[in-house]
Amino acid sequence: MSTELMTKRYEFTVVATDVVIFSVQEKNLRVLLIEMKKSPFQGSWAVPGGLVKSDESLSNAAKRILSEKAGVTGVYLEQLAAFGEPNRDPFGRVVSVAYFSLIPSDQHALQTTSEYADIRWFPVRRLPKLAYDHQEVIRTAMERLRAKLAYTTIARNLLPQEFSLSDLQAIYEIILGKLVDKRNFRKKILGLGLVKSVGKKRRGGASRPAELYRFSRSRTEMIDIL
Amino acid sequence: MSTELMTKRYEFTVVATDVVIFSVQEKNLRVLLIEMKKSPFQGSWAVPGGLVKSDESLSNAAKRILSEKAGVTGVYLEQLAAFGEPNRDPFGRVVSVAYFSLIPSDQHALQTTSEYADIRWFPVRRLPKLAYDHQEVIRTAMERLRAKLAYTTIARNLLPQEFSLSDLQAIYEIILGKLVDKRNFRKKILGLGLVKSVGKKRRGGASRPAELYRFSRSRTEMIDIL
Repeated sequence: MSTELMTKRYEFTVVATDVVIFSVQEKNLRVLLIEMKKSPFQGSWAVPGGLVKSDESLSNAAKRILSEKAGVTGVYLEQLAAFGEPNRDPFGRVVSVAYFSLIPSDQHALQTTSEYADIRWFPVRRLPKLAYDHQEVIRTAMERLRAKLAYTTIARNLLPQEFSLSDLQAIYEIILGKLVDKRNFRKKILGLGLVKSVGKKRRGGASRPAELYRFSRSRTEMIDIL
Repeated sequence: MSTELMTKRYEFTVVATDVVIFSVQEKNLRVLLIEMKKSPFQGSWAVPGGLVKSDESLSNAAKRILSEKAGVTGVYLEQLAAFGEPNRDPFGRVVSVAYFSLIPSDQHALQTTSEYADIRWFPVRRLPKLAYDHQEVIRTAMERLRAKLAYTTIARNLLPQEFSLSDLQAIYEIILGKLVDKRNFRKKILGLGLVKSVGKKRRGGASRPAELYRFSRSRTEMIDIL
């Protein structure tokens, strides 16, 4: 960032966006982080973020930054919240409009720019040192995710097209951090007509073949699940 | 606004806040609007809003603007969403972080500044011509309000401390725009322990004296109501 821009950024409040991407991998809820090089944050990690250009919408800025700084494209982003404490960014007064998204694991080859030292998935229970107010940003995103799990079909975004009811239940248990009663959960999911059987079973492994399902509708909907 | 500031605002994305205040009055959900004087919006109405100062948090800016431009103080504000389409404000690239609030009717003496022509409550079903993207801002606030009515005790903010179950039901019916089954509603509200009887009745009018209640807890909570 040029000195001129940094100086000007002290006069005005400018707008950035940060993108929290969650995935479930190896039975952990993980978040995508990039490692900072710039002082005062060398060695700290952050969710991908950057300034909004004057001619782009907030959501387009979030998509561009996610593509440029993480190599992740084609995901559905939802606005999380605006973070605007006056001292949240040492480079100037920056309000960040954060977005969040859920993606199935291993569908994207991660790739960042030379501006950053590394890019990696971290389990939300074992986060590294975070830059800016990204601890609060990630915490807010997790609260939203847990709430939406209860009243929407957002979990669909973490699963492949075909999945077993145990896969779905595992997503809930991993994100909520507690066991879910198997019988009630199945009864609720099937009773709501949220999923339909695809008429085949998954074999392999030591366990019994699991019946495979897919979601009945193609979009995330509001519905009382838990 | 000075010409210098207006010019500079084209170079950078600056941050504003807009505040949607709802109230239920005369069996209508109403929103607080101020009438614009400035071209190109003379005669259009807007929710109170303004630029965020570089040293204040977003929520403090919203409180300050609501006090300065509407005379409303001491209300709980909740962040609604950020609105950032590039052409939403003809004065420059302005991202607005909107807040919303519910207040009991007639608790505030409305008062705006000489910058505006008038301040008034409008029923959400009969809104005047709106400036900026405030139609979308108000629509988004109404969606949030309806959703929160179903899973939180947010309705408490529209009622006086003591109210009858019919008052509470009326709030739901007015905001949702549909009738609520009286028996189920009472059973749910009482069964959840959301309210407790204050041990007295309200007399007057032609109807039977109504038992008065108050909310059991002092804060808005998440709970499945509808």
